[in-house]
Amino acid sequence: MKKPEEVVQRMLEHDHFSQWMELKVNSIGVGSAVVSMFVKQEMLNGFGVIHGGVLFSLADSAFAFACNSRDNLSLALDAQINFIKKSVRGDLLTATVEEVHTGKTTGVYEVKIRNQAQELVAAFRGTAFRTGKSLFENKG
Amino acid sequence: MKKPEEVVQRMLEHDHFSQWMELKVNSIGVGSAVVSMFVKQEMLNGFGVIHGGVLFSLADSAFAFACNSRDNLSLALDAQINFIKKSVRGDLLTATVEEVHTGKTTGVYEVKIRNQAQELVAAFRGTAFRTGKSLFENKG
Amino acid sequence: MKKPEEVVQRMLEHDHFSQWMELKVNSIGVGSAVVSMFVKQEMLNGFGVIHGGVLFSLADSAFAFACNSRDNLSLALDAQINFIKKSVRGDLLTATVEEVHTGKTTGVYEVKIRNQAQELVAAFRGTAFRTGKSLFENKG
Amino acid sequence: MKKPEEVVQRMLEHDHFSQWMELKVNSIGVGSAVVSMFVKQEMLNGFGVIHGGVLFSLADSAFAFACNSRDNLSLALDAQINFIKKSVRGDLLTATVEEVHTGKTTGVYEVKIRNQAQELVAAFRGTAFRTGKSLFENKG
Repeated sequence: MKKPEEVVQRMLEHDHFSQWMELKVNSIGVGSAVVSMFVKQEMLNGFGVIHGGVLFSLADSAFAFACNSRDNLSLALDAQINFIKKSVRGDLLTATVEEVHTGKTTGVYEVKIRNQAQELVAAFRGTAFRTGKSLFENKG
Repeated sequence: MKKPEEVVQRMLEHDHFSQWMELKVNSIGVGSAVVSMFVKQEMLNGFGVIHGGVLFSLADSAFAFACNSRDNLSLALDAQINFIKKSVRGDLLTATVEEVHTGKTTGVYEVKIRNQAQELVAAFRGTAFRTGKSLFENKG
Repeated sequence: MKKPEEVVQRMLEHDHFSQWMELKVNSIGVGSAVVSMFVKQEMLNGFGVIHGGVLFSLADSAFAFACNSRDNLSLALDAQINFIKKSVRGDLLTATVEEVHTGKTTGVYEVKIRNQAQELVAAFRGTAFRTGKSLFENKG
Repeated sequence: MKKPEEVVQRMLEHDHFSQWMELKVNSIGVGSAVVSMFVKQEMLNGFGVIHGGVLFSLADSAFAFACNSRDNLSLALDAQINFIKKSVRGDLLTATVEEVHTGKTTGVYEVKIRNQAQELVAAFRGTAFRTGKSLFENKG
């Protein structure tokens, strides 16, 4: 069986958008992940703060890493996010994933995003469907 | 009072991330918006399909345009998305916003994203808080 | 194959809480349902309006009826609701379900609750998992 | 300023549906609440397990108690729930609220429902709007 680090390494190698966000995986475990990034200018919306979609993307990537860490290919069915505090260019955001539930066919994950002052920026919850396939089956 | 087109024009001018997504505003009205984009390689995740966060971002931008169209500065409190169909590089995605509710302090908006074959790709719902300020007050 | 009416009839016969709400199924079809009820005193919260959980329950029952209408036993994974307008004792609430997506293993349904004046009271979206079993297999 | 216990006491006195559920408030604090109930027959759905709407109602009541504990009248804007484990008649369910965010105009609360074996049954998140009014202003 693959280690979580191997699975996430493989995911990241092919993940163009997480690369664009310049995500850094601080730690990864079975069902867990801590991922961070700096807010850069291209991530800002028309009000000069981080675009809600980029915040969601950070949480969604962290969710995907934790969720696939057992090498059971899992797809997000849906997700929800609360926007709590604004972030601006230069902020360091860290997403921490908690596995709330893992079952044979589904999983539920909560992600909290905090800034460099440990203030809560966003709270996210995602539901995933497990396919039972390995991530290493499909791609060379 | 500003026209919806003027408001959205101003938002887009400053919206770096919507520019990165190369969003095209097909139409805009009071409480409504239709926005489209092509899926490009930088938007893909580790499974070769569009990153869920970019889909969310498309919906979130469309939501913000519709939501601010009365020039009442509005901020997203939370949002939810269901991922229904995969999209790949080159797909043309169109987000259509419906104003489900508009009140003095809050608004609720539903966004459907469809591909070039009119297949539903994602369903989004967002809740916004209205500040009562003009978007033209804060920025030169 | 069972007709939607037969499936829902069977569900309702065993559904104690929908009976408590005195739900009336106005119409039922493949993937669709219209369900109504009157707001009664026992449904009110501490502010004299309908308890949010009872509104959710009305939508959730309507969702379950539409979702199981093909006699493919389906279970709710998650759901979201926006509370838009208050309802008081004596109001007639009608929940109308739209099948946004139906797939082999999952389905997505949107429910709108309106009052007797056709005003929107709540907007709900639910995600279901399909087991592939008949509802008539398990119970005598 | 009213104590959390006084506020919740007042809410419960008028809350017909929480009374119907026979909710027991185990503890209440500023921004927190622990509430429990037994699953009774009238709460079951057509599949012999607790109706999703009743689970939601338990979480929603606990959310309302925590959310109003500062005597700042607050209304739920929206909420989301993940259904994780089935409950049957006789189960003892306990909802524990965590205040994720409290601001001047909004608040975000997470509720976890567990059964007598401490297994997670449901995860809920709600967003509230604060009116700035006292709960003791409106009612004799």
